[in-house]
Amino acid sequence: MASNAFGIQIDSASVARGVSRLFLRNQIMVQPEVSLRNNRRADLMGINAKGEIIIVEIKVSRADLLGDQKWPEYLDYCDRFFWAVPAGFDFSPIDGEAFLPDRTGLIVADAYDAEIIRSASLVPLAAARRKVEMQRLARLAMRRLMGIADPDPSLAGIIAE
Amino acid sequence: MASNAFGIQIDSASVARGVSRLFLRNQIMVQPEVSLRNNRRADLMGINAKGEIIIVEIKVSRADLLGDQKWPEYLDYCDRFFWAVPAGFDFSPIDGEAFLPDRTGLIVADAYDAEIIRSASLVPLAAARRKVEMQRLARLAMRRLMGIADPDPSLAGIIAE
Repeated sequence: MASNAFGIQIDSASVARGVSRLFLRNQIMVQPEVSLRNNRRADLMGINAKGEIIIVEIKVSRADLLGDQKWPEYLDYCDRFFWAVPAGFDFSPIDGEAFLPDRTGLIVADAYDAEIIRSASLVPLAAARRKVEMQRLARLAMRRLMGIADPDPSLAGIIAE
Repeated sequence: MASNAFGIQIDSASVARGVSRLFLRNQIMVQPEVSLRNNRRADLMGINAKGEIIIVEIKVSRADLLGDQKWPEYLDYCDRFFWAVPAGFDFSPIDGEAFLPDRTGLIVADAYDAEIIRSASLVPLAAARRKVEMQRLARLAMRRLMGIADPDPSLAGIIAE
């Protein structure tokens, strides 16, 4: 976990909040913790104003960043992919070829805001796959809202899809 | 507003909750109060497991049911359309030709559950329109979740789309 200039540790949830604020101002709607059909789980996943699917992978520890061999699997489920790290995090590894700097974007965040350091290239999904992911995102977000609106325990086991 | 057998008035929000429980058990994910591009607002709108767009119009007063001349405009934005009324409501007008019984379904609800009295026919939207509505539903639901997760007042004015 990274620390900011004041020595305060910044966790993944705080990074997610900062990124979400940046995204909201830029008409990118996302939700946290989205399971993919490949058994990976996206930290943030959503849809920008153009209808492109966005995935953000949050890294708050160097070991987790350098040890993740499977992250390219996310690329099969989004049109644009971003790394997000806390302010103060040494993100120099993300400039390396292994992290596909021509393909992946980079966001630096704290709990209150975030900034895009490197934009993410558009590598369009096949239209059929984008349609499936759009529908999954819609149903998952509505399922979550339904659970908030009516926390009936007998409904708790029902998941979207 | 209708009253149930115990003389308790049932409001639109209670009907929405009953319908939502029925839908959740049947893998239909919806959200309330969805503005359409024709300036109408759907009481409930969502997506079933087959990816069909569902709209539900709730009526709790006979005057509102009989006085609504514009409801057919909803049909342009869904694959299946349901009326929903409270238990005890006289829904005999909905059997009349003006309410398109071959096209529209009917749900009777209380605050705790609901039952489909008449199923809704599938009249498929054009694929391009369904795609737009799917994206709008996804972005609206994620926007609502973002507002719940982070009620920062400076973000309150941002709406999906």
